[in-house]
Amino acid sequence: MGVGRVHYAFTGSFRTHPGRGGEFATRLAEGAPALRAAGCLTYLVAQAAADPDLVVVFEVWPSKQEHDDSLQRPEVQAAIAALRPLLTGEFSGRELGLVGGLGLPADG
Amino acid sequence: MGVGRVHYAFTGSFRTHPGRGGEFATRLAEGAPALRAAGCLTYLVAQAAADPDLVVVFEVWPSKQEHDDSLQRPEVQAAIAALRPLLTGEFSGRELGLVGGLGLPADG
Repeated sequence: MGVGRVHYAFTGSFRTHPGRGGEFATRLAEGAPALRAAGCLTYLVAQAAADPDLVVVFEVWPSKQEHDDSLQRPEVQAAIAALRPLLTGEFSGRELGLVGGLGLPADG
Repeated sequence: MGVGRVHYAFTGSFRTHPGRGGEFATRLAEGAPALRAAGCLTYLVAQAAADPDLVVVFEVWPSKQEHDDSLQRPEVQAAIAALRPLLTGEFSGRELGLVGGLGLPADG
């Protein structure tokens, strides 16, 4: 990440129906190649240790534009539709500006 | 990340006093070398776009042990003490198991 460059990041959490968190997280993670093709730099999919029906994602993108455009891709829309039955609908998401850290995308 | 290997991850959000989010995030990010020395694999520090006094971190560690041990390191304790005056005390954290994605640590 270049000095002074702020990447767009996004974090979200999804609640699944009871017992479906592992399946949901695995299937989200399987979407990594589609997100890579859309320009995503970092995509971390995790399951809450104390609440395994809660799945958390953290994404880094070159800008908000690539993120928003990715949601219009047919394969992403198909994946969202296929996964929706696993979810209760309880969701929270937050747009972020990445400031720095460790293990950052090198190609920004 | 080896197939089937689940890394420990942690996400947290901190609320700063008004107008201090940028300073807090920058100083957290400056702690990256100390976290690397403690074994941290990924450490993403970000500021909420719509709420810049809210700072979000996402960390990946080989296991919970390295994460917990890092909090005992003198330089980490000193940094926490130095940064605490910027914070309101409103904090939420969540322990996670990393399932997969993109831009994962290669050395786990």
